[in-house]
Amino acid sequence: MTQLIDRTTRGVYIIAATPFAEDGALDLDSLDRLVDFYAETGVTGLTLLGMMGEADKLTPEERRAVIDRMMSRAGALPVVVGVSDAGIGNLTDLGRHAMDRGAAGLMVAPSRGPAREDRVEGYFHAVAAALGADVPLVFQDFPLTTGVPVSPALIRRLSNDLPQMVMLKHEDWPGLTKITALRAQESAADVPRLSILCGNGGLYLPQELARGADGAMTGFAYPEALVQTVALHHAGRTDAAEDLFDAYLPILRHEQQPGWGLALRKHILMRRGAIASAATRAPGPRLTTTDVAELERLMARTERRLAERG
Amino acid sequence: MTQLIDRTTRGVYIIAATPFAEDGALDLDSLDRLVDFYAETGVTGLTLLGMMGEADKLTPEERRAVIDRMMSRAGALPVVVGVSDAGIGNLTDLGRHAMDRGAAGLMVAPSRGPAREDRVEGYFHAVAAALGADVPLVFQDFPLTTGVPVSPALIRRLSNDLPQMVMLKHEDWPGLTKITALRAQESAADVPRLSILCGNGGLYLPQELARGADGAMTGFAYPEALVQTVALHHAGRTDAAEDLFDAYLPILRHEQQPGWGLALRKHILMRRGAIASAATRAPGPRLTTTDVAELERLMARTERRLAERG
Amino acid sequence: MTQLIDRTTRGVYIIAATPFAEDGALDLDSLDRLVDFYAETGVTGLTLLGMMGEADKLTPEERRAVIDRMMSRAGALPVVVGVSDAGIGNLTDLGRHAMDRGAAGLMVAPSRGPAREDRVEGYFHAVAAALGADVPLVFQDFPLTTGVPVSPALIRRLSNDLPQMVMLKHEDWPGLTKITALRAQESAADVPRLSILCGNGGLYLPQELARGADGAMTGFAYPEALVQTVALHHAGRTDAAEDLFDAYLPILRHEQQPGWGLALRKHILMRRGAIASAATRAPGPRLTTTDVAELERLMARTERRLAERG
Amino acid sequence: MTQLIDRTTRGVYIIAATPFAEDGALDLDSLDRLVDFYAETGVTGLTLLGMMGEADKLTPEERRAVIDRMMSRAGALPVVVGVSDAGIGNLTDLGRHAMDRGAAGLMVAPSRGPAREDRVEGYFHAVAAALGADVPLVFQDFPLTTGVPVSPALIRRLSNDLPQMVMLKHEDWPGLTKITALRAQESAADVPRLSILCGNGGLYLPQELARGADGAMTGFAYPEALVQTVALHHAGRTDAAEDLFDAYLPILRHEQQPGWGLALRKHILMRRGAIASAATRAPGPRLTTTDVAELERLMARTERRLAERG
Repeated sequence: MTQLIDRTTRGVYIIAATPFAEDGALDLDSLDRLVDFYAETGVTGLTLLGMMGEADKLTPEERRAVIDRMMSRAGALPVVVGVSDAGIGNLTDLGRHAMDRGAAGLMVAPSRGPAREDRVEGYFHAVAAALGADVPLVFQDFPLTTGVPVSPALIRRLSNDLPQMVMLKHEDWPGLTKITALRAQESAADVPRLSILCGNGGLYLPQELARGADGAMTGFAYPEALVQTVALHHAGRTDAAEDLFDAYLPILRHEQQPGWGLALRKHILMRRGAIASAATRAPGPRLTTTDVAELERLMARTERRLAERG
Repeated sequence: MTQLIDRTTRGVYIIAATPFAEDGALDLDSLDRLVDFYAETGVTGLTLLGMMGEADKLTPEERRAVIDRMMSRAGALPVVVGVSDAGIGNLTDLGRHAMDRGAAGLMVAPSRGPAREDRVEGYFHAVAAALGADVPLVFQDFPLTTGVPVSPALIRRLSNDLPQMVMLKHEDWPGLTKITALRAQESAADVPRLSILCGNGGLYLPQELARGADGAMTGFAYPEALVQTVALHHAGRTDAAEDLFDAYLPILRHEQQPGWGLALRKHILMRRGAIASAATRAPGPRLTTTDVAELERLMARTERRLAERG
Repeated sequence: MTQLIDRTTRGVYIIAATPFAEDGALDLDSLDRLVDFYAETGVTGLTLLGMMGEADKLTPEERRAVIDRMMSRAGALPVVVGVSDAGIGNLTDLGRHAMDRGAAGLMVAPSRGPAREDRVEGYFHAVAAALGADVPLVFQDFPLTTGVPVSPALIRRLSNDLPQMVMLKHEDWPGLTKITALRAQESAADVPRLSILCGNGGLYLPQELARGADGAMTGFAYPEALVQTVALHHAGRTDAAEDLFDAYLPILRHEQQPGWGLALRKHILMRRGAIASAATRAPGPRLTTTDVAELERLMARTERRLAERG
Repeated sequence: MTQLIDRTTRGVYIIAATPFAEDGALDLDSLDRLVDFYAETGVTGLTLLGMMGEADKLTPEERRAVIDRMMSRAGALPVVVGVSDAGIGNLTDLGRHAMDRGAAGLMVAPSRGPAREDRVEGYFHAVAAALGADVPLVFQDFPLTTGVPVSPALIRRLSNDLPQMVMLKHEDWPGLTKITALRAQESAADVPRLSILCGNGGLYLPQELARGADGAMTGFAYPEALVQTVALHHAGRTDAAEDLFDAYLPILRHEQQPGWGLALRKHILMRRGAIASAATRAPGPRLTTTDVAELERLMARTERRLAERG
């Protein structure tokens, strides 16, 4: 029986990379390996086909193939599937496929184009109606990429009006005060809480947790850093959580470069044995030898610092 | 005694160009001539220092000089003054100066930057508080330039919450359905009407009037076209209004080219004797001989068509 | 034997709408009817799957179905196919399919994302290399939608460096001086001319033709207006061309409203018998009865004016 | 005799905050104190009236007052002055004032508006011509704020064509490969080097230095961190430089939040005794008690970590 995300979901949902062979073909074997890698780091769940999963460069068949393969490998790990699309019909088709395969919920970003909040609101109502009330939804709030800034009041209205909108993927920037505003709203009676998982590579994760976030939904190539930071925080050990986090911060910040960071992330995943090739689909970032040397130096520095921590 | 704009204001407020000498200095004599020119076309009022008034290239002293000179020449014509500014302090200083000189109201566009509707709302509350309750405000809704799309619900909320926000300068694009939405809201009890004057060069003026707009606030170099279109429409002669409008449409559409249109507008105003020079301040558009020949051909075609109409 | 577009191509390539049934399914019968309708208006060619063809809401299979059906119906009419895509692989797959079916060329817009001109340049070199030297390309220069403004120098460099980049779909706004700049460059020796067809709904078509454009590639629901304007212009009857154009300008301007205009266009096409339903795929614009009445009034006014011209 | 910046300038030019009293008035005493504070941290120079200096909320008189007061206090420290403005006339007036007072150079960002690279190029030629050949210029390349992405080729062309354009304030993001590209261009004969100082809060400073940057021009509230990082790097102690930098990284990253970070920076400067009040001019960010507690916790963690380093 499928475990669905709900308004109390917490932990780390890692945004899964999509592995390709050097020629750009889907690398299904690496898909398996990558799921195992993520599972071993202790993540709570997986999120497939997010923006950093190059979903917009996959055909619908390829998206389904990724869903089928990764979900069958994921076993008991809950899986959220990104289904953002220019058209609601295609979004719904992919979303139903994912839910049929046992997905825990679907993630949707406001579609590009006229960014007025009333249109964003209408869009999510239409998406929710098309998918049905039993499909849990994640609102991806990522203005840096979507170009659509969204007020806390709109997020709350959607959360109140659409029972299935159970989670916010928070990646407004700056966005710390938004978490505080959303949690403050929940002190009123009759305001159902939202699960808030944070994106943006986790760049402000300790602060976000302190302000009431429930965890992370992002794609750092050292998922164990996110897992341990969240676990320590939830155990009340906030300083230990932040000390651990800070040890990873130099490379986390390096990976958190828009667009280009995907190539860095895939290179680390390859070097850690999680995928066979760091290839991205064109037009995508490619690393030069200078870029690789710079990155591997940061990897070595990270490992040294972790070793020093003992 | 100053006549203030209010929620029933209608007619044509022409956005005044700011005339410069060839060396870029303010041309105060042309300011007088331009006010007389506008008055003779029958406009209801003037709007100074709008985006097409190159206000952002004037120093605060120059802005005050323009206000003082044009308002003393305008006599009984009500004058709205654009005071948009990066800082609320400077906005308020200029606004108070304008109101002291007898302005009919002030126009403000949402400041650039994070475009979230909650921030736009907070910004207008802060502006209104700084200026005081007795200063009528015009909300300039021009997303193509400000980058800030605004929902009808937010405009209405500001109109309801701020009694002094009496007018919308409507230039969302496409924006016809927005007028209809705003007027529909007013059928409810206790919703005070907004005056709606339309910008965007008047490109959709007949349609906007039919949907409930009260007139135009824009800067076409043939203000009599706007005046007559609005007057005919208000007299119930909608087809005659549109026939007249359509005779001007080819050159109106030509002038309505973002940024570049300012040079076209000033050239026409110069050719019509309203200002001495078509100069804009750098970095501003400049016309080549090709551009001028193209424009003058359109002017001649317009005049011929008007002559044919008799 | 397929007729390919080249650097001397002129005339009117009409951007084809994609007809859907009320339930959102592709309406293949209307595809046939629409091709016949366009052919009867005298267009030079068709352009499929442009931005106003809702291509981003079609699956790859549907795009191929549209190509196959419309091209088999188009007979001798040359057909350009829009293949813009987030990934070069999918772009290439669709492009090859279209060329195999006999397309006259492919149209590509700069991909969204980091808009630096060096990246746009690299992107088009990559696209051209992937498709091969024998596939004629159209550069779609539409900054209002893509968010990517492009200098004339870059267009020229791509035209010079890529022999297959034979055509510019010009829809920068304002953009008249760009045409003049591009044509001036061609007065130098060794600079191959570009075919320039204009988009933007044709809003400035007479001026664009006078500055050296070769025709139109846009989607007005009265294609005969574009056809006759271009024909009269090419026959040296520039005033007659513009008189004819101006008779259509009020409704052309109405249709030329970003995004929303698609619903207007489809409604006119339906009323003219070219398609069975005006439906767009969600999230797409829908007309209210107010919108329809406004539009039909403009249609009636247009027909009356044409009748008056005799 | 004034020391001008040139193509070999290196080190740390700290972007100076502009201190205000709680009521928004310029706080001239704090200006003195702040200059002394910066000087004591060992910075190479100061940069006044940058984007984080709230220059757009100052009147021209206030800008001159800031320049006069800070430059008289700065003594031998070279001072770069930001003069970005919507109009070239006002830019030139302020720039001449600054140079007359002994500024070391002027910083200009591409003006907003049509962002085509040919227009950016024309704009800088016009600015350089207006200021004269003896005024050293800094090109501020900050697309996240200006909305104007710029190719390395354009920066190089401006550097080659305008001998006075001696420095790049590098803050493209991601931007590491841009530094490498610019330095690679300089290996060709006859390509004069550019001084490259990095902004963006210094978030990638160690990597930027390794790729050939000459230092930093940014506004971190712990300037000594930038000073020591650059000094250690220039001394060849790259690992020590990065270890030092990483100790500050958690709070540096916190301060590097667009817009909001200014309030954080001013709070730290106030707590360090450099300015009397953390006030920003409206509309500007304000910290809540939650925000302050979060920030002070990060300050305490930073100090603890520095103490542990000994």
